[in-house]
Amino acid sequence: MAPPPGRVLLAVDRYDPDRWARIIGAGREVVRERTWPEDPSIRYAVAWSQRPGSLSGLPNLKAIFSVGAGVDHLLADPALPDVPIVRVVDPDLTRYMVEYVCWRVLDHQRQGRLYRAQQAQRVWHEPPQPLARDVHVGIMGLGHLGRAAARGLLSLGFRVNGWSRRAQAIDGVACFHGREGLPAFLSATDVLVVLLPYTPDTHGIVDHGLLARLRRDGPLGGAVLVNAGRGRLQKDADILRALDDGTLKEASLDVFEREPLPADSPLWSHPRVFVTPHAAAPSDPNQLAPVMLAQMAAHDRGEPLVNLVDRVAGY
Amino acid sequence: MAPPPGRVLLAVDRYDPDRWARIIGAGREVVRERTWPEDPSIRYAVAWSQRPGSLSGLPNLKAIFSVGAGVDHLLADPALPDVPIVRVVDPDLTRYMVEYVCWRVLDHQRQGRLYRAQQAQRVWHEPPQPLARDVHVGIMGLGHLGRAAARGLLSLGFRVNGWSRRAQAIDGVACFHGREGLPAFLSATDVLVVLLPYTPDTHGIVDHGLLARLRRDGPLGGAVLVNAGRGRLQKDADILRALDDGTLKEASLDVFEREPLPADSPLWSHPRVFVTPHAAAPSDPNQLAPVMLAQMAAHDRGEPLVNLVDRVAGY
Repeated sequence: MAPPPGRVLLAVDRYDPDRWARIIGAGREVVRERTWPEDPSIRYAVAWSQRPGSLSGLPNLKAIFSVGAGVDHLLADPALPDVPIVRVVDPDLTRYMVEYVCWRVLDHQRQGRLYRAQQAQRVWHEPPQPLARDVHVGIMGLGHLGRAAARGLLSLGFRVNGWSRRAQAIDGVACFHGREGLPAFLSATDVLVVLLPYTPDTHGIVDHGLLARLRRDGPLGGAVLVNAGRGRLQKDADILRALDDGTLKEASLDVFEREPLPADSPLWSHPRVFVTPHAAAPSDPNQLAPVMLAQMAAHDRGEPLVNLVDRVAGY
Repeated sequence: MAPPPGRVLLAVDRYDPDRWARIIGAGREVVRERTWPEDPSIRYAVAWSQRPGSLSGLPNLKAIFSVGAGVDHLLADPALPDVPIVRVVDPDLTRYMVEYVCWRVLDHQRQGRLYRAQQAQRVWHEPPQPLARDVHVGIMGLGHLGRAAARGLLSLGFRVNGWSRRAQAIDGVACFHGREGLPAFLSATDVLVVLLPYTPDTHGIVDHGLLARLRRDGPLGGAVLVNAGRGRLQKDADILRALDDGTLKEASLDVFEREPLPADSPLWSHPRVFVTPHAAAPSDPNQLAPVMLAQMAAHDRGEPLVNLVDRVAGY
């Protein structure tokens, strides 16, 4: 059987592009480099942090598929063509994120760092232990991942606050919204979980001023930050300052202003920071590629694309 | 108003007996030491690891209340009087245990130890990451705490097996029972969570032979042990041997053959052991004492005691 008409331009430099090429290539002909600038055979693109301009000028490009839940890496390209952008919505990516958030919040609530320090000193001592229901977790960003994380935390017994740009309602979650809702949200939050999209509006939003509004006199004896969204939502230097001046007790960071995190970053060795290498919710091509190929086939048949990005909102 | 008739003998040496005396004492007259051997004024006892014989010979003793979910510490007393023993069933104690189990299982599944080691070396590397649904957690002991832990793990997406002495059925859990069901249970288990009662039958059950039957070629690249039951269910030396000969990948231990864990125990410094000081599920007198006082009052009115221990079964 001949492959379906229309080739796929793969514009993925990180995250094992050979593997992506192999798996997408099982369903469609894949192009890694255009053979000429206006290659008319290219109908779809699969992209992540593409080189600026690398998707422009293709006369028959119908849609771009983003690898990963965020699309800031695509939108950063000033020459991005004006075609629909499809966001990946993968149940497994969501499961990974819920697991990561529950894991990190439990480790802070159950005082993993304290017990590890006690063990190193051979100290047998039971500290006061708050229950999950005594701890207020605040989730910034109530998209697909934020809502799923909220449900996971609720099932463990945590109190959950949520903050989003526009008003939302989620069962069991105290929802706040807009810049005007931010101070009340933060002052009711012991553990801040950041799952915002990265846009010009959210650039550097997790700064010292924001962290200083978190509740510090709660049951954990200090405020905690978990960022599993995007690195440029935060100011690394402000987090370090907040840790050292008593604003912040601990942080779990999966993302950083620069990735990979530079070897000379003081975050690596800070005793109250837990670093993971942007691994909270990996995009598995084995899971994602079939979803993309099915959407391409549906679009070829004239069906609408789903999970489209709002380019004006930026996410 | 006069206190209710009948005093309470408090036979608690560990876990802050002064605090217990104060809180029980708010509702009933409390005796720390008998004024004479056959003190007829004593109607109830509240006990934990009492000195052998310290509850015997009381002519009007009606019931003994155990501090903590296990009662092995009471039954170890050969001179324990033949009166009903009430087990503490405290929703908070259950919540603590579910949180502890979810926390430790997530930390093993999400490879906390590997990431901490990478961070210490400033290594940015994403390892293969199994999802919770790829990991089989086996719970030994399907009493109140084991069943609650199973529900918590299921809500996080883990596959859950259960093993108990007698046949049980729990929605979503693959249940095994009896000595004859143990090999099949263990060979289908990546992470073993021990929540058994301690009885002569379960003494030292977690030995090298049992650990060697766990699944070692699963998604975690090795078998993991979590013991939050009783220390004498396990053989500390066998766990160390299993860690060092490749039988066991990692362990989270909240309980030990001797507690406090002796300062010279090699478990303290083993790089693949996480030690907590019998703190998985603390018994909070503020929560438990009112439940006990209410049961005493109900019994005084002629109502039956609830949550009684089966002395023949030993739990």
